[in-house]
Amino acid sequence: MRAIEWDGKKFKLLDQTKLPESVEYIITDDYRVIIEAIKHLSVRGAPAIGIAAAFALAFASMRIKANAPKQYLRELENIAREIESARPTAVNLRWAIQRLLKLAHALQDVKSIPAILLDEAERIRREDIEMCKQIGIKGAGLLPESGGVITHCNTGALATGDHGTAQSVIVTAIKQGKKLHVYVDETRPLLQGARLTMFELQARGVETILITDNAAAFVMTQGKANLVITGADRIAANGDTANKIGTYGLAVLAKYHGIPFYIAAPTSTIDLDCPDGSTIPIEMRDPKEVTRPFGVQIAPDGVDVYSPAFDITPNELITAIITEHGVISPPYKENLKNQTAAGKVKQPV
Amino acid sequence: MRAIEWDGKKFKLLDQTKLPESVEYIITDDYRVIIEAIKHLSVRGAPAIGIAAAFALAFASMRIKANAPKQYLRELENIAREIESARPTAVNLRWAIQRLLKLAHALQDVKSIPAILLDEAERIRREDIEMCKQIGIKGAGLLPESGGVITHCNTGALATGDHGTAQSVIVTAIKQGKKLHVYVDETRPLLQGARLTMFELQARGVETILITDNAAAFVMTQGKANLVITGADRIAANGDTANKIGTYGLAVLAKYHGIPFYIAAPTSTIDLDCPDGSTIPIEMRDPKEVTRPFGVQIAPDGVDVYSPAFDITPNELITAIITEHGVISPPYKENLKNQTAAGKVKQPV
Repeated sequence: MRAIEWDGKKFKLLDQTKLPESVEYIITDDYRVIIEAIKHLSVRGAPAIGIAAAFALAFASMRIKANAPKQYLRELENIAREIESARPTAVNLRWAIQRLLKLAHALQDVKSIPAILLDEAERIRREDIEMCKQIGIKGAGLLPESGGVITHCNTGALATGDHGTAQSVIVTAIKQGKKLHVYVDETRPLLQGARLTMFELQARGVETILITDNAAAFVMTQGKANLVITGADRIAANGDTANKIGTYGLAVLAKYHGIPFYIAAPTSTIDLDCPDGSTIPIEMRDPKEVTRPFGVQIAPDGVDVYSPAFDITPNELITAIITEHGVISPPYKENLKNQTAAGKVKQPV
Repeated sequence: MRAIEWDGKKFKLLDQTKLPESVEYIITDDYRVIIEAIKHLSVRGAPAIGIAAAFALAFASMRIKANAPKQYLRELENIAREIESARPTAVNLRWAIQRLLKLAHALQDVKSIPAILLDEAERIRREDIEMCKQIGIKGAGLLPESGGVITHCNTGALATGDHGTAQSVIVTAIKQGKKLHVYVDETRPLLQGARLTMFELQARGVETILITDNAAAFVMTQGKANLVITGADRIAANGDTANKIGTYGLAVLAKYHGIPFYIAAPTSTIDLDCPDGSTIPIEMRDPKEVTRPFGVQIAPDGVDVYSPAFDITPNELITAIITEHGVISPPYKENLKNQTAAGKVKQPV
């Protein structure tokens, strides 16, 4: 099951807010519908958001009526900013949009832009699928022959073009014959771990155990977990990483218990323009996601809620970062820069 | 609002599983109904469980038909064991039951037992109210003049006879003029923080902010929290403390961020028969509490769930333990023993 499907005619987004109870698709070629789907987490996961955003801009480009290149590009850039603001933390979104904009600016003929942007969106999707496969291959060697893995949120096929990031590493290691079982944090407030990761890992035949987020420390102290691995929404130049709220706490706990903490993400998640975590914007979520999950009121009306979507894990808590090009170890400032440069050469842009 | 009310005629348990949406009472004098209420968390919080258990045994004693002391006491002991097994981690439950049994054994006249046990249950309730008041007075001085406090689960009037434990400390400090606001962990799976603590603190006019359990680390790293304070379900002789799942993780995070971590509990929570945390039994909860909270399915059917009700915080992570007799600092092995002995002298048994 893929988060995003495109057969050259029909664009389908799996509505992940409905999982695991029902499998429903959003079929659209309206960029505003895609923006809403990103905002409401029908599509989520940094790489998948990047792909959806690219298609959104490509679809939008078809509807711009201006013929003069300057005006056409101005309208395209306005829409691009609108799409970028849907989720400010995920850097892949901005990265995908910028990649399409750059291409549009390089073209002389305005009429050729829509088809070329659509091709490019599809290229981003295909590249992402291949990158995720490579992340699994590059990272699997870090995992032990047997034992327990803790993961947080959803980093599977549903979060990417296919295969996933952290989940790709786990599943590749298991395919290589490693005897691993996975403790899945339910991941409040939106429960992507319980709803999506459990669903995906079970479908792939992986031994999974669901835990509440606050049980991870106890699992570690009992010696049941050999490592933690998560995805990332943005990695700063020094390795500081923004990911789903709760990731930072897991990294502190992993350090305290002496087990490694890994991040798995495509290089498009690395933002060399962000010097460190303090410059990454942290999106705040709607309090109702906490007080009324799935329509059930669990806290009195009108209470104050502090609900950051992400937190920042400082580089010193990260054992290694796994990308499609390989395993990056500290010092991150140097090594991320080198590998991102290497990646840029290899990417078929 | 009190968890348990007794006017000499009618015994009322507030059904806390219905809060905050509706205020409903269980009115009963059947010990089996009280056992079910303890098992299903209609009444919860270690001190409140102890009180409810004492009334359960007193009510049961009225219905024993045997006249021969030996047979009467055997039946009473069987019921006592049944009540004790309702929640194995909370030591107050066992402590209250043992207190009543000891009294029954000391009486010559079987017919006098029920009235005396009922008096004793009421004495435990009144003592608990006074103890909680004292916990607040003894602990308030530890809190800063202003700042943020993180708390977990529910430790308010609803968890005790009245006033609460950790909450008594917070509220007493605020009454003394300290400018404190409280970050309340929602406390999965049963959300006692969101449902009960938010409800109680708001009713008491305290500035409260609800967070998901996994956001506590981010709150700390932003410098928004000056301390963590929780209750306890059982404190071993060396200070290791069993409390709601998630407490141990908070203690690790507090240490990492250099902020104090306090436990507040009556001395009846201290179990000198438990040498350390490894000997405290950890109750496992029903997986459905995780997968189907409030009837809403959030994870696929039949998944494996690991849902310990409690975790153990090792003594080295606890800055101080606050009881009704004062503040206990490390080394806990000596100091807990001394203060428990002092407490036993003072208690009007």
